[in-house]
Amino acid sequence: MRVLGIDPGLTRCGMGVVEGDVGRPLRLVDVNVLRTSADVPTAQRLVTIERGIDAWLDEHRPDAVAVERVFARSDSSTIMGTAQASGIALVCAARRGLPVALHTPSEVKAAVSGSGRAAKAQVGAMITRILRLDAPPKPADAADALALAITHIWRGGAQARIDAALAASRAGGRR
Amino acid sequence: MRVLGIDPGLTRCGMGVVEGDVGRPLRLVDVNVLRTSADVPTAQRLVTIERGIDAWLDEHRPDAVAVERVFARSDSSTIMGTAQASGIALVCAARRGLPVALHTPSEVKAAVSGSGRAAKAQVGAMITRILRLDAPPKPADAADALALAITHIWRGGAQARIDAALAASRAGGRR
Repeated sequence: MRVLGIDPGLTRCGMGVVEGDVGRPLRLVDVNVLRTSADVPTAQRLVTIERGIDAWLDEHRPDAVAVERVFARSDSSTIMGTAQASGIALVCAARRGLPVALHTPSEVKAAVSGSGRAAKAQVGAMITRILRLDAPPKPADAADALALAITHIWRGGAQARIDAALAASRAGGRR
Repeated sequence: MRVLGIDPGLTRCGMGVVEGDVGRPLRLVDVNVLRTSADVPTAQRLVTIERGIDAWLDEHRPDAVAVERVFARSDSSTIMGTAQASGIALVCAARRGLPVALHTPSEVKAAVSGSGRAAKAQVGAMITRILRLDAPPKPADAADALALAITHIWRGGAQARIDAALAASRAGGRR
């Protein structure tokens, strides 16, 4: 399966496409960071992000989209822009009928590094190893987008196994 | 001028269209509240909101769109959804090339009632009087959307006068 991971943000919006399946090597398809200037009105910045995501959906035709789940934190002045950008990402995927999943930053860190509290550098190093790259993807938003896509493929697999186990258990109960 | 006011929200998104100019009576064109169910995934709810706003832009062809400015408040569990819905509203307007303005709740209260701390009921009563309605618009999201549109018309007029005064002052300085 091919997954587009999106690390939403107004100033930098990371997008990473990864292809593969659980238990097989994953492959980096493409990675990019959309940038918009703080000098431009928010509405126009969001339109630029929408166009960038739409262009990537057209080009890479992913099977699913994974977006970082944004939490309200009173200590962040950029959180509203991040939430707005995440809304655009969700709409871009959903209006094409693509499955969309939200993963929290700690779910992503845990999936790729084994620890929900892993440092940025550690996540970058794991992405490099998992996708067999020469160097960690930069900036961090690019690495985070790839980590989201990887998490989605791996968790999707786990979820499929859980669903299968539950279905089997229900079928067993009915016998 | 005709203004679409949008009070963004995932569960209830208020939309109100008002027509008129500063110093003349304003007219209610239409008011509605888009509702989406919490049982539906966020991405799908945002698509429903996008379609509803787009349909109203098609139908009412406003000259400008006024959206409530959302602030991060740690005491609100719905703030992320509200921010996402506001992002959709901004994009719907901006991709049509419509001017978009953000007004804070206290700016809106001050514009329609004279006090930035006015109660909901007071705002509703003022909307009723300004638009010569038989009863206050309900629910509150509908009244808030109309209040946004009214604020935009009135502040737009004030802004135009300020811009004209500044331009005149600059021209005077150059003489």
